[in-house]
Amino acid sequence: MAIVRFLVSCPDRPGIVAAIAEAIFGLGGNIIQSDQHTTDPSGGAFFMRVEFDLPESVDRAALAAAVDRLGRAFTMQVTVRFADDIKRAAIFVSRLDHCLVDLLWRWKAGDLPLTIPLIVSNHADLKPVADAFGVPFAVFPMTKESKREREDDILQRLDGKVDVIILARYMQILTGAFVARYPARIINIHHSFLPAFVGARPYEQAALRGVKIIGATAHYVTDDLDEGPIIEQDVVRISHRDGVPDLIRKGKDIEKAVLARAVRWHLEDRLLVYRNRTVVFAC
Amino acid sequence: MAIVRFLVSCPDRPGIVAAIAEAIFGLGGNIIQSDQHTTDPSGGAFFMRVEFDLPESVDRAALAAAVDRLGRAFTMQVTVRFADDIKRAAIFVSRLDHCLVDLLWRWKAGDLPLTIPLIVSNHADLKPVADAFGVPFAVFPMTKESKREREDDILQRLDGKVDVIILARYMQILTGAFVARYPARIINIHHSFLPAFVGARPYEQAALRGVKIIGATAHYVTDDLDEGPIIEQDVVRISHRDGVPDLIRKGKDIEKAVLARAVRWHLEDRLLVYRNRTVVFAC
Amino acid sequence: MAIVRFLVSCPDRPGIVAAIAEAIFGLGGNIIQSDQHTTDPSGGAFFMRVEFDLPESVDRAALAAAVDRLGRAFTMQVTVRFADDIKRAAIFVSRLDHCLVDLLWRWKAGDLPLTIPLIVSNHADLKPVADAFGVPFAVFPMTKESKREREDDILQRLDGKVDVIILARYMQILTGAFVARYPARIINIHHSFLPAFVGARPYEQAALRGVKIIGATAHYVTDDLDEGPIIEQDVVRISHRDGVPDLIRKGKDIEKAVLARAVRWHLEDRLLVYRNRTVVFAC
Amino acid sequence: MAIVRFLVSCPDRPGIVAAIAEAIFGLGGNIIQSDQHTTDPSGGAFFMRVEFDLPESVDRAALAAAVDRLGRAFTMQVTVRFADDIKRAAIFVSRLDHCLVDLLWRWKAGDLPLTIPLIVSNHADLKPVADAFGVPFAVFPMTKESKREREDDILQRLDGKVDVIILARYMQILTGAFVARYPARIINIHHSFLPAFVGARPYEQAALRGVKIIGATAHYVTDDLDEGPIIEQDVVRISHRDGVPDLIRKGKDIEKAVLARAVRWHLEDRLLVYRNRTVVFAC
Repeated sequence: MAIVRFLVSCPDRPGIVAAIAEAIFGLGGNIIQSDQHTTDPSGGAFFMRVEFDLPESVDRAALAAAVDRLGRAFTMQVTVRFADDIKRAAIFVSRLDHCLVDLLWRWKAGDLPLTIPLIVSNHADLKPVADAFGVPFAVFPMTKESKREREDDILQRLDGKVDVIILARYMQILTGAFVARYPARIINIHHSFLPAFVGARPYEQAALRGVKIIGATAHYVTDDLDEGPIIEQDVVRISHRDGVPDLIRKGKDIEKAVLARAVRWHLEDRLLVYRNRTVVFAC
Repeated sequence: MAIVRFLVSCPDRPGIVAAIAEAIFGLGGNIIQSDQHTTDPSGGAFFMRVEFDLPESVDRAALAAAVDRLGRAFTMQVTVRFADDIKRAAIFVSRLDHCLVDLLWRWKAGDLPLTIPLIVSNHADLKPVADAFGVPFAVFPMTKESKREREDDILQRLDGKVDVIILARYMQILTGAFVARYPARIINIHHSFLPAFVGARPYEQAALRGVKIIGATAHYVTDDLDEGPIIEQDVVRISHRDGVPDLIRKGKDIEKAVLARAVRWHLEDRLLVYRNRTVVFAC
Repeated sequence: MAIVRFLVSCPDRPGIVAAIAEAIFGLGGNIIQSDQHTTDPSGGAFFMRVEFDLPESVDRAALAAAVDRLGRAFTMQVTVRFADDIKRAAIFVSRLDHCLVDLLWRWKAGDLPLTIPLIVSNHADLKPVADAFGVPFAVFPMTKESKREREDDILQRLDGKVDVIILARYMQILTGAFVARYPARIINIHHSFLPAFVGARPYEQAALRGVKIIGATAHYVTDDLDEGPIIEQDVVRISHRDGVPDLIRKGKDIEKAVLARAVRWHLEDRLLVYRNRTVVFAC
Repeated sequence: MAIVRFLVSCPDRPGIVAAIAEAIFGLGGNIIQSDQHTTDPSGGAFFMRVEFDLPESVDRAALAAAVDRLGRAFTMQVTVRFADDIKRAAIFVSRLDHCLVDLLWRWKAGDLPLTIPLIVSNHADLKPVADAFGVPFAVFPMTKESKREREDDILQRLDGKVDVIILARYMQILTGAFVARYPARIINIHHSFLPAFVGARPYEQAALRGVKIIGATAHYVTDDLDEGPIIEQDVVRISHRDGVPDLIRKGKDIEKAVLARAVRWHLEDRLLVYRNRTVVFAC
């Protein structure tokens, strides 16, 4: 048996669920899990994630044809994924290691279904970490002036080898040109509870404002810095006794947890983007 | 348009979702929200909650016939609910008012879709609260010896008038005979994080054990005290500085919140019971 | 025995704790609880809250003299409070009742040590609530033009009768002149996780931005809207399924809880303000 | 300057804080942080943690004499710690690596002030992890019969080299004889919200009971399995969709976080034990 997932978006109208379920049944499939969201009962958008078993005997042409029929009948976008098509992720880092190490340990523990063809960095500092886990590590040092050029080098290096990019505290802002090549496929972790404390040094900003809770936000990267669709957020309580170093220390734990959840959901095809927001078909 | 909900349980097998969706489509319905859970992909139980719009023109006989066909084809239990059939709840209380008052305010604010034909108590203390909200209040004083008799009086008073019973810190243990009359229709709030601190005086137990977090648990009532299917739980952090009165004060807030969520989910037909556990099709 | 509290601020230097503890011991007092915070070990500010039993026989002149000596010796500000000097609070509301009702119930349950000489509103809507709890209710209808004048009326009405003002979803922005009369004595509840979603309609802003968690913030009111020292914050998880009405409903619960905690801490003299932040000597 | 901490326990009576603060002032010290707890204002126990700067010139004999005087005057137990006397921890593991790895990374990141003279295990599996961090690793394979003997070997190996023992998912129950050698100095992580799900396989127990939240508990080890004083607890929300493998995966994150916090507090001398409970002087 193969496990297959459909991620579906289309204008809402009666009969969609029936048509999808029937198509799956027609292929001999059995639905394991299905989740659906309609933005607005009267004429909104329809989103669905459905996961089903399919007998190995089903040929992919029949599957493609079924999806094609659905697409035409309902002006529907259907992304088809096989659960055992493990996604390939490039992890981008700078000098901070906690998010990278956390991802690598979860990956090694079998908790994140991905392969990691490459770790990319603008600094050589974390090469020993990559080496310890046996993951290739490439350094692309860059200045403000050379950024576009270096990004082109990175794009070339990744070309055709990577399904998703994870910014694990990568301290460079990607250019719009780069981002355009991986729409809804670059995940960033921002170390604040967005939209609070956009931009640089959010822990310092938080300490200065005297908040009682700090947060972390994983989001897809778009052209607008820290403005992309939010995938996941979490928070931790702080007090007046916590200085910036305490905020950094406490924040690390939620950065790691939030990024790992967002990555996991992306890898399991649980995320859909609409109007700069995400639908999270979470377990 | 009427909003209708199906709550479905049956053995899992291919084609169930398709059949249900098709039946709804056949009636002219449009699915607003659907949630599904399969306990075990290989031969487990199948559960579904599906909410859909139905044109007013659909006659109920056609709906009943469609449900009947589904039931026979898949050995399926389908509970059919119309969203505007507001459920009727009896609230049972003793002397503590916080859960009662909270439910009444939420109800008055329009946040809980129910009617309250009666508040039942073994004491007269909370009558003024009931009066303030214009809800009938009946006192059934009871001793250990008279409990069975008083329960019969209560059952007679509720007979045919009530869909669900909410124990809002009701300090009497219901007899098995009483419980049997409202299976999966009596919701209790227990003031601990079950299964920790079963039984009496859980806050005292918690203080003695020195836990760092206390909780509250809403569950359906079964024959076994505090052993029924858990609907919802929540917790609050405490410290060594909190004595029993602080635990009681902090606990009140989560008791209220947990009970209100459990009641709301029951009223919205989001709960299914299997093997002494609940499936919560939460929003 | 009387329970007395000192709230202390001064520049840090050796010997402060000893001097305070000795002064209390000299008066025959026994320290029940003490909490201290130094912003920076090398030359920062020193803050302390100390609560102690004092024999009834101690005359207040002796106490005042001891405090005076401390003040002069350490350039220290000491606020002296007797725990049984219950604070008098005016609650300001507009049309939303949930925070008001919550405060009134906690007060009635004995969980908030205060008296409520007056509820102030710019609308008459919530008068029945005030009546139900037997609290005087005064309406001061205002337009943009008449606001200053109405505020003067309010100030006059409150003059000498009120120790703290609680804005329980009061929909008017107080003028600087008004705020200046109650420095660090006006508590507001803002229905977002500040500094995210400053200003109007934060739930709408949150829905639009697609955040996964919403919050509430209690803060002292200063001249700058939503920029005053934060006292307490809390959050609740939301999902793509939650529309603005769900955010409002879920938000209510944390608004109530956060405001109640902030008020309680103020009433128990647990709050000190410095550099637009709060020190919270919480239990 | 040296940073020194007193951890104080004694029967409550007037003048204790003054005496301690005066003693510190007399030594030329400046109190950085002080926290105090009295179990019961009328005749309970008094606990205090006070952290202060001491000029390097102060000789330790003077410090010892001051502490001795306090001890005799108030029947007081005072533990004196120098913040730069880094504690030596042995970490005990079996086959699961997540808690070990997490502790080692936090240690390597400088977030845990300790040295690790030895990792002890009853299996060789995690030796590569120890090697990667350059920490000695000793295997003591044991059967039911040989446990006492192996424990003696371990005790001998640790003798005089270790201040605290961390059980990072160590799957052996220590004998009473072993525990008696390290009173309030062995920290265990139990993978449930104690006292719920004592004993073996708590995640399986949790899944069976159908709880909606799972937890982890760090506690000092005493003779009674899972009954020692609780240091810290935390929880994570689960749903009916989570099977035992999901509980294990989600539980790992809180096990790591809870254990790390408990260890950190122990290392910073923030913990006092009384009547099988802990006072946590947390930051």
